[in-house]
Amino acid sequence: MPIRPATETDWSAIWPIFQEIVQAGETYAYEPGTSQVQAHSLWMELPRQTFVYEQDGRILGSYYLKTNQAGPGSHVCNCGYMVASQARGLGVASAMCEHSQQIARELGYLAMQFNFVASSNSGAVHLWSKLGFATVGRLPRAFRHPKLGLVDALVMYKWLANA
Amino acid sequence: MPIRPATETDWSAIWPIFQEIVQAGETYAYEPGTSQVQAHSLWMELPRQTFVYEQDGRILGSYYLKTNQAGPGSHVCNCGYMVASQARGLGVASAMCEHSQQIARELGYLAMQFNFVASSNSGAVHLWSKLGFATVGRLPRAFRHPKLGLVDALVMYKWLANA
Repeated sequence: MPIRPATETDWSAIWPIFQEIVQAGETYAYEPGTSQVQAHSLWMELPRQTFVYEQDGRILGSYYLKTNQAGPGSHVCNCGYMVASQARGLGVASAMCEHSQQIARELGYLAMQFNFVASSNSGAVHLWSKLGFATVGRLPRAFRHPKLGLVDALVMYKWLANA
Repeated sequence: MPIRPATETDWSAIWPIFQEIVQAGETYAYEPGTSQVQAHSLWMELPRQTFVYEQDGRILGSYYLKTNQAGPGSHVCNCGYMVASQARGLGVASAMCEHSQQIARELGYLAMQFNFVASSNSGAVHLWSKLGFATVGRLPRAFRHPKLGLVDALVMYKWLANA
């Protein structure tokens, strides 16, 4: 299995992936100018767990898992996935999302929620839909895309527990 | 105007309101056992601004305003409102919500989003709807109500800027 928990040693390989994606500003609700220190906190420290996808000794992607809302919402988790630009289209995101659902179930979460999927990110919307996530919300003009301007953001959600 | 920025002196009056509401666990996604130190951080430190509603020298309610998502989402704000149990039904929440929209506009936000409104909280749903918020999302069984069990949570949203 190419997916394993991230270690501090992995950060030097995760950071360029994070930086490229966040600087582009087309998919993630992080400040495009997020510093490496801030990124480390956001990706490696604040989440409950962080994983990497490693193949032949190279980090091709990473994801985090965290509780989405505290207290009465703490049975729902949230994940974020990033794939290196040179590794797109190889099924890395799909594998990480499937893996994260399994981890979430093991941790006792009942559902997974993506809070802020840019509607313009059709690859992600298509993939999450294929993996069983429903679009349960549409936030009008909530995402400022650097080329397209204000576009809707989607809330996507999947119940993980057995019925 | 009974609404003004909160000061450190106000905290001793805000905390009992926070504690009663959060311990009940019926409306807010905070841990029911949130400590006073944690509550101070969540309500007074992390938000961009915090306000109180004061009448005849008594704090009847408080609200915070913060940016809901960073980077490409930073034009949308989020608010949370709490009203003392003995001051319910007097229009305090309504006045704070109207006030927050004005403050949000002054700060340059284009929209306001409530991320996690318990669908069972019909008073809040009705009030926010009356004040122009649309229900743009419904999160299935995302809120664990202490009496009702798992109920849906709503995402509510209002565009603040002129068309």
